[in-house]
Amino acid sequence: MGRAHIMSLASSASPDADRVLAEVLFDALRRDTGDGIGITRDSYGVGETMALDLLETTARRYELPAWRDAAANLVVELPGREPTLPAIACGSHLDSIPQGGNYDGAAGVVAGLLALVRMSADGVRPRRTVRLYGLRGEESAAFGRAYIGSSALLGQLSSSDLATPHMVTGRPLGACMAAAGADVDRIARGERLLDTAMIAAWLELHIEQGPVLVARKMPVAIVTGIRGNVRHRVIECTGEAGHSGAVPRWLRHDAVLAVAQLLTRLDEHWQTLLGQGCDLVVTSGVLGTDPAEHAISRIPGKMRFSLEARSQSRETLAAFHDLLEDECRRIEEERGVRFALDRRLDTEPAVMDADWIARLRRIVHRLGLPDEPMASGAGHDAAVFANAGVPSAMIFVRNQHGSHNPREAMDMADFLIGAEILRLALIEGAA
Amino acid sequence: MGRAHIMSLASSASPDADRVLAEVLFDALRRDTGDGIGITRDSYGVGETMALDLLETTARRYELPAWRDAAANLVVELPGREPTLPAIACGSHLDSIPQGGNYDGAAGVVAGLLALVRMSADGVRPRRTVRLYGLRGEESAAFGRAYIGSSALLGQLSSSDLATPHMVTGRPLGACMAAAGADVDRIARGERLLDTAMIAAWLELHIEQGPVLVARKMPVAIVTGIRGNVRHRVIECTGEAGHSGAVPRWLRHDAVLAVAQLLTRLDEHWQTLLGQGCDLVVTSGVLGTDPAEHAISRIPGKMRFSLEARSQSRETLAAFHDLLEDECRRIEEERGVRFALDRRLDTEPAVMDADWIARLRRIVHRLGLPDEPMASGAGHDAAVFANAGVPSAMIFVRNQHGSHNPREAMDMADFLIGAEILRLALIEGAA
Repeated sequence: MGRAHIMSLASSASPDADRVLAEVLFDALRRDTGDGIGITRDSYGVGETMALDLLETTARRYELPAWRDAAANLVVELPGREPTLPAIACGSHLDSIPQGGNYDGAAGVVAGLLALVRMSADGVRPRRTVRLYGLRGEESAAFGRAYIGSSALLGQLSSSDLATPHMVTGRPLGACMAAAGADVDRIARGERLLDTAMIAAWLELHIEQGPVLVARKMPVAIVTGIRGNVRHRVIECTGEAGHSGAVPRWLRHDAVLAVAQLLTRLDEHWQTLLGQGCDLVVTSGVLGTDPAEHAISRIPGKMRFSLEARSQSRETLAAFHDLLEDECRRIEEERGVRFALDRRLDTEPAVMDADWIARLRRIVHRLGLPDEPMASGAGHDAAVFANAGVPSAMIFVRNQHGSHNPREAMDMADFLIGAEILRLALIEGAA
Repeated sequence: MGRAHIMSLASSASPDADRVLAEVLFDALRRDTGDGIGITRDSYGVGETMALDLLETTARRYELPAWRDAAANLVVELPGREPTLPAIACGSHLDSIPQGGNYDGAAGVVAGLLALVRMSADGVRPRRTVRLYGLRGEESAAFGRAYIGSSALLGQLSSSDLATPHMVTGRPLGACMAAAGADVDRIARGERLLDTAMIAAWLELHIEQGPVLVARKMPVAIVTGIRGNVRHRVIECTGEAGHSGAVPRWLRHDAVLAVAQLLTRLDEHWQTLLGQGCDLVVTSGVLGTDPAEHAISRIPGKMRFSLEARSQSRETLAAFHDLLEDECRRIEEERGVRFALDRRLDTEPAVMDADWIARLRRIVHRLGLPDEPMASGAGHDAAVFANAGVPSAMIFVRNQHGSHNPREAMDMADFLIGAEILRLALIEGAA
């Protein structure tokens, strides 16, 4: 029924037709890749391929050329008048985590298809080619590695990445990619399958994975950058265990109170940095005393915790890490404890393109919408393109209940606003 | 060899003889109840009984009457001239935790025996009877219940206590007590096996289980009171989980940072209360995020921790608990989290007798020793006697490395000072 409906829509293209096409596509995706709880589109697996197939078939109904690239991603094109000019690219990913939500990723691909369908129906003949990507393997749930489809395109997948076994089936990534039709030999050689000189821009619409747009009552926002992060998986604080009743305060070296003080001070620094206009979030997600030795009536001699800071700014991350080291030293002196930090893990922030941000914000203004740009805390394929030198930009669409769960909820009205912004930006950029 | 040595000592009694007798007894205890790592004198079990037997045999060598009471504790007497007067009692416990130290408990019984032996040898004929107890079952390691021997004497052991299975063998406490010779029927009825009206005082020497005397370079201290405590086994803080990158600070309800702030504020209140002269120690010994849902890149939505405050003062414990509740409320409002406190568990502090403290401190002064009374953070049988209305007092002896481990280390010189103070106090009290 979904497919027949899509066929009947293919002749007309209007804002109403956009809504119907979007609803039909999201319904079909939900039906085809539903798992009873949420949806599952395993990276380089069956559900993901079904999603690519659905979008490809639909594009063909609208007479848009569509094919798979050498990394087995879906490509749909609206050919430009001057095909030798670098193209304007848009899209997002079609995979999901197990029992995930229907919109995380797919919204950006459907929005791109809507734009191409309407431009085509409206007889828009852009100067530059407009290209839509339905990327594979963005989520890290299947192989631990994220952004597989875009990284493969940009020659950034190593042979050790390709050897990584699927977390459930154990099948290596390379084998899964080959089965999906990717040219694994070229990928293994680190070849750039996509000539970035021939891509003028990357535009990605994505649901917001946090609660900001809901809280700010805004349907969409333009993304200023994608936060990088600095992480320690384990920081261990060592003090001295002892009888909880028999050791007075001045002779204690309590690891729990030392860590509590450290986190409280870092929280204060965080507030100060926000007050100075810095972009920053700080999280200690995993923390605890040692079950092998802890007891209610024992002064805790050891405690371990993770620490992560995220920011759009490399400088803010560096400054925060300096503060961490300073406070560890201060508390070591004050409390007679030791902090041992494991290897520092860095992920670079990705800066969105200033010209594209300006263009997108002008469109937002023109549509009479509130304009309050925001950072993306989660990672996206846009970061891979941006860090490969492609001017990149993102549109966030309001979404309830976060992402990576079946309860994610995007209003179709919000989605259509985002899709309209994407369409107008593609028309401007390709003109 | 130990026993033969004891026999040869029985004729002479001098300060030197005290040292030799103490060393011989401690060596014999270590040999008889050693487990290869530390010593093990299971409550109402084999090792404990061996310790009682050794002390009883030794007392008899010195012609001191010795027997087991209705709770199977060891009793040794130096009969007074007026046996109808309430007696002066001293002693401590002879059980230990598994792989424990040789002095925790035994030091007080050996010190009492030394005092009785020397008073007898010196021809001291006190007006009041002086009685030494080698108590059983003080440690909670075997049955979860502490102070079993003294509680049984004072009619404070319930039938549910008696039904408690041994943590390793599963044998009920009542059966273990009966096997050791206790009159379990009378104990089960809650009968007072010891008429507290016939006990004028309880004096207990014990190793310090904390590091204060080592740090203060003092061989002994007189104990002012035994800290009671207020405990919550589990306080749960509930915030809201979320993506660690995608939720800005103002929309977070981070359970870890809320608990860190709570503990840091309680630590500050603790310092303030100490500054006001209050006796207080505070410990959060068991704490952690939920392994079922925590992740480095997830805002922690839940965290659990234990909290314990100990003080000699009921008022200080109440004030601290009020501060806990106030701070929980404040942080709930500030951070949009919830604290759920489980049932509050109270253990009453035990006040040591002011007249006996004064007497003991005069003796300390007379011996030219530094006098700095201190609280006991750990519980002792003395708390059971004190709370049953028996004027009670304690002498702490310096000890390295805490207690409840084989590394505990008491200098014989320190012990002999403590034993001398006990002896002088018994002579004064019984005169």
